Amino acid sequence: MKRPTIADIARRAGVSKVAVSYALNGQPGVSETTRATIMAIAEEIGWRPNSAARALNGARARSIGLALCRPARILGVEPFFMELISGIQDELSAQSYALMFQVVRDHTEEMDLYRRWWGEGRIDGAILVDLHLSDPRVAVTQALRMPAVVIGHPSEAGSLTPVWSDDGAAVRETVRYLAALGHRRLARVAGLPRLVHTVLRDRAFTEVCEELGLDGHVIVHTDYTGEQGARATRRLLSAPGRPSAVVYDNDIMAVAGLSVAQELRLDVPGDLSVVAWDDSPLSQVVRPPLTALSRDIPAYGGHAARALMSLIAGERVAGFEDAAPQLTPRGSTGAPARA
Amino acid sequence: MKRPTIADIARRAGVSKVAVSYALNGQPGVSETTRATIMAIAEEIGWRPNSAARALNGARARSIGLALCRPARILGVEPFFMELISGIQDELSAQSYALMFQVVRDHTEEMDLYRRWWGEGRIDGAILVDLHLSDPRVAVTQALRMPAVVIGHPSEAGSLTPVWSDDGAAVRETVRYLAALGHRRLARVAGLPRLVHTVLRDRAFTEVCEELGLDGHVIVHTDYTGEQGARATRRLLSAPGRPSAVVYDNDIMAVAGLSVAQELRLDVPGDLSVVAWDDSPLSQVVRPPLTALSRDIPAYGGHAARALMSLIAGERVAGFEDAAPQLTPRGSTGAPARA
Repeated sequence: MKRPTIADIARRAGVSKVAVSYALNGQPGVSETTRATIMAIAEEIGWRPNSAARALNGARARSIGLALCRPARILGVEPFFMELISGIQDELSAQSYALMFQVVRDHTEEMDLYRRWWGEGRIDGAILVDLHLSDPRVAVTQALRMPAVVIGHPSEAGSLTPVWSDDGAAVRETVRYLAALGHRRLARVAGLPRLVHTVLRDRAFTEVCEELGLDGHVIVHTDYTGEQGARATRRLLSAPGRPSAVVYDNDIMAVAGLSVAQELRLDVPGDLSVVAWDDSPLSQVVRPPLTALSRDIPAYGGHAARALMSLIAGERVAGFEDAAPQLTPRGSTGAPARA
Repeated sequence: MKRPTIADIARRAGVSKVAVSYALNGQPGVSETTRATIMAIAEEIGWRPNSAARALNGARARSIGLALCRPARILGVEPFFMELISGIQDELSAQSYALMFQVVRDHTEEMDLYRRWWGEGRIDGAILVDLHLSDPRVAVTQALRMPAVVIGHPSEAGSLTPVWSDDGAAVRETVRYLAALGHRRLARVAGLPRLVHTVLRDRAFTEVCEELGLDGHVIVHTDYTGEQGARATRRLLSAPGRPSAVVYDNDIMAVAGLSVAQELRLDVPGDLSVVAWDDSPLSQVVRPPLTALSRDIPAYGGHAARALMSLIAGERVAGFEDAAPQLTPRGSTGAPARA
């Protein structure tokens, strides 16, 4: 098995390789009939100018890189990443760019990957996701002088171009809404504590709870799995002074929380209000349907891809703040039965 | 922003470009000290031999292609694809291969993509998923003479290498189990009717129901979304002679079905038994937890990637039949209350 070459076209057309080359490059020296025949054969056998030859002539790789550093089982159950990737790709494919995508085990592996892809001319830039506090990838990417967009807050993005949304605003909107319904004891079942967006959500949650004088606000950190979401909920609901409302950092943990409430014969929302971050279709197929923080994740990916394409084109891009997630109230939140 | 070149190394090391080239290629002509300095600088600034230069010398692209032809919202909520991709990548990255991944709108776009990627030397082969009846991609891929693995039944894979599992066996096991529990009226809420695996599951379902003399077996086709799963379930459960057990083609539809039963005040499993295809973490966080057809999807992806790597290496690969999905009984199935 091999790619079609100029020699294959020449053989089929019964002409020399030089004639094929003239025809394909639009140079004189072949008749229009021969040129048409050669073009038709080239199309038929799927001949394309070799990307390696073009790249050596200084053309771009026309690919960008994306690495995800989460275990497969978690990636599968988080609609976030597939929606993000799909938004990135909508933008890329409009410009005939491809995505080089890889799941990595840790940041060291991810940085090695970028060094290799960039050094070998396989990518023209990269999108970094899941920004950590003091993230080592930022300095490495800066040192490579590779165009890069970080999906995450500007405060931790160094000189890379950040694309972010105001998660703090969404947390404040949610807590104020729950307080207005009469809730006094709130809990937050959060994701990984070293992720920048977890830290920002944690901070906003604590601040707004204190601002509103709510008594027993508590935060539990998890790894985003349903198991840990269920365990955190079970612990919260069986402790004295249990919360009457819980805000979860993803859908699957919120659904797990709903099931734990059911196990413990608690009514949702009478005994417990539940809010899910990221409004995937899952939020709407459970009963009661989940109140959720909705955002257009494919659009978010699209903004990141557009910013990166501008950087690759040599433009200066300051960053892009996307709309904050919006609270979408559904059946899982209400006034507490025993306020 | 540009990639580090041999000239950059030469400047930093204070030697000629020729000396750098000798050092990097392990040729004589530079002292061991200079060679060590040059290697250290190359490492530090992230220099790599250019992939385009290597590809022109006949080296491989060291990438494989994968296109997914499903809307973003569905992809996001289907753990299947992310788990499959992650299994493919585990295998690829062990061999320093990358994945070029793209979401496409239809088969025409997908075929154009393969023609372009293969023609331009961007990929060494591809994995085709979601095999359709009389799938046009098979003939096109054969004509390109590109190494390709099809995740799907050999009967529709043409001369491409198939990797598949016996879905019929899993359907038969499930129906026999439900019949043994005392169910007489079974329904199947299936996926897209043109997919080969839907057809094979449909056929096995009808055959085994008739074999066992079950009366009212019925199949409804959907697009895999929770909405259509819920609608199909609502219609099935409100019709006369409603089924006492429903087998769903994915998790999200099974969860939607569970919610519809709850809406209609039906007890699961007393009034309705529910079985989900593909045992993602979602099956276990709902109440009752779902009886499911479990399989190791990352391993399935790994088999496909291994078969493709063998093809690329020029070996003959007949195909690979993976283990059939296994029935994992949980709380959502039981004897019907009014048998």
